[in-house]
Amino acid sequence: MEVVQVLHMNKGDGETSYAKNSTVQSKIISVGKPVMEEAILKLLCSSVPESIGIADLGCSSGPNALRVISEILDIIYAKCKDLGCPPPECRVSLNDLPCNDFNCIFGLLPTLYNKIKEEKGAGFGPCFISAMPGSFYGRLFPSRSLHFVHSSSSLHWLSQVPPSLSWNPSTPMNKGKIYISKTSPSSVLEAYSQQFKENFSLFLKSRSEELVPGGRMVLSFMGRRSVDPTTDESCYQWELLAKALMSMVSEGLVEEEKVDSFNAPYYAPCAEEIKMEVEREGSFSIDMIEGFEIEWDGGSDDKQSRGRRVAKTIRAVVESMLESQFGRDIMDELFHRYAELVDDYLSKNTTKYTNLVISMFRKDC
Amino acid sequence: MEVVQVLHMNKGDGETSYAKNSTVQSKIISVGKPVMEEAILKLLCSSVPESIGIADLGCSSGPNALRVISEILDIIYAKCKDLGCPPPECRVSLNDLPCNDFNCIFGLLPTLYNKIKEEKGAGFGPCFISAMPGSFYGRLFPSRSLHFVHSSSSLHWLSQVPPSLSWNPSTPMNKGKIYISKTSPSSVLEAYSQQFKENFSLFLKSRSEELVPGGRMVLSFMGRRSVDPTTDESCYQWELLAKALMSMVSEGLVEEEKVDSFNAPYYAPCAEEIKMEVEREGSFSIDMIEGFEIEWDGGSDDKQSRGRRVAKTIRAVVESMLESQFGRDIMDELFHRYAELVDDYLSKNTTKYTNLVISMFRKDC
Repeated sequence: MEVVQVLHMNKGDGETSYAKNSTVQSKIISVGKPVMEEAILKLLCSSVPESIGIADLGCSSGPNALRVISEILDIIYAKCKDLGCPPPECRVSLNDLPCNDFNCIFGLLPTLYNKIKEEKGAGFGPCFISAMPGSFYGRLFPSRSLHFVHSSSSLHWLSQVPPSLSWNPSTPMNKGKIYISKTSPSSVLEAYSQQFKENFSLFLKSRSEELVPGGRMVLSFMGRRSVDPTTDESCYQWELLAKALMSMVSEGLVEEEKVDSFNAPYYAPCAEEIKMEVEREGSFSIDMIEGFEIEWDGGSDDKQSRGRRVAKTIRAVVESMLESQFGRDIMDELFHRYAELVDDYLSKNTTKYTNLVISMFRKDC
Repeated sequence: MEVVQVLHMNKGDGETSYAKNSTVQSKIISVGKPVMEEAILKLLCSSVPESIGIADLGCSSGPNALRVISEILDIIYAKCKDLGCPPPECRVSLNDLPCNDFNCIFGLLPTLYNKIKEEKGAGFGPCFISAMPGSFYGRLFPSRSLHFVHSSSSLHWLSQVPPSLSWNPSTPMNKGKIYISKTSPSSVLEAYSQQFKENFSLFLKSRSEELVPGGRMVLSFMGRRSVDPTTDESCYQWELLAKALMSMVSEGLVEEEKVDSFNAPYYAPCAEEIKMEVEREGSFSIDMIEGFEIEWDGGSDDKQSRGRRVAKTIRAVVESMLESQFGRDIMDELFHRYAELVDDYLSKNTTKYTNLVISMFRKDC
């Protein structure tokens, strides 16, 4: 499975689309907003640059895609008004993998431009919104071209499934599971942690070349409070999905080998792992790192069962990957079973996601 | 009709897609290549900048979309090798209207990056290819961020149908026609010429702010050799399309009012009109302007009738606009009739398109 080719949120605006099922990610953006605001104000506190480079990494599509950008521009324009200085030229880049539905975002751009013009009047600075398709685990932007980088609900995705998990297909390391589980051998935990470190370190190095000294990043993604990578807060959504798959295996609807050989290119790190990589890479200094609890269904109050809401949220995100492994035909049944398992689990447990928010700045060199 | 919303080449890669029917535009790119090469070499002749900004305006989708960029990069890398200097950081922007199929282009990017890496080896400079959706009749890029602008088969599209053509819907000015025709009143000719001047002038002004002094543009688009805007070389493809529509009107398949109220947002200027606008705007100096003849079917040698090939070429380009006016249902029949009219016409005439290629540079200020 080539992550770059199969990882994308569900396209369009249908029932199972990401556009219609991204309440959790929207909630996460809300939680991170004050941190983002503080970072931008710090960035502008000494002086407002003439031209400011902004990137949203892993922007996805749907209503969340332009929301962050819109909020960042609001903060910048409000601050400039406060300071009585002309707003900077804003160069905004939306990034995601090439298979993301950028057409959908572009269709919303004219409305965003009009909204900015209306709200800010003639006084708003020129603003150029472009798209940069590619993996953020590598260089994306010209050297020292960015002042502020934002990324939400993206950095928990790895560039690849840890390769050691598939070294020996005849003896699968993570049998019957699709992510770290309490019963996974320590080699699985180690492989995932290692892949995260490599990815996150490459991410930091790439951004360190793209950000100006003093430039800032606010990163927000799934993580965990515990140092133990097998706790429910960081694993159990995958555990239940594996259960749903295995129940279909037991009925002959899914081949067991396909479950054994599938592992999610995902990792929910703890703050300590992040701090260690930031220190090791050396270009950034962490301002704050904090964990927030997020309900599995984003605390939505629509009338469906929580299980169904959670299933739709997860489906919108992972379906592209599961389809490439298990085929399109089993998706409805799989997420039907998953919804039931989630309902049952949440009737007895109060497990929530932990979302980590990290604010850091590019050190002078 | 909002041009920004309805003007896009046919998406996907089906029978009527632009991807499958863009031989003419490909031919036009080939014809313009030596001019582009000369312009880039002039740009690099004194010194190679550390970072070079390149934009392809109206890139569309399909095989042509990345071809120009690929050729530009080839020229730059070859020149640097010649000079024995390290290649610059290339910042490449692909531009088209937001309704263009950018997803399709992005899907091809990984292959292009791999090709560059393979062909140039480790010695090739960092290259960042992004997309900037929006109308080129207005600012698209940060101030003085570009060194080279290319645009092929795009600037003959106007930002809007000349508004005076629809001032009085009860007495249509261009009855039974959809572009300038020999029988069009002079007010129609005047309205089209005026709209082109306004658009082209705004294009020049916008680019003048985005290009560095000495920066260069190579623009290639449909035009005419004659100063008379009603000559066949610049009009007759539309004349025949109007005929096809009117034949459907006569059979009650299309409402006459719909033809009367439709006019193409298109203009094929002559060199004199272009020179005049360039001089009036004042920021650019023309190096060369030349007209090339292009066969209506691009000189393709596949086995279909020429009429069918021409009809498919035109359909891939204008169907999105015609659909919004006449509905999707009549498209097959319309282009069937069009193909027959073209076959009949080309059996008696040798009319070709005139494609103008203009090379100019941003004057120092």
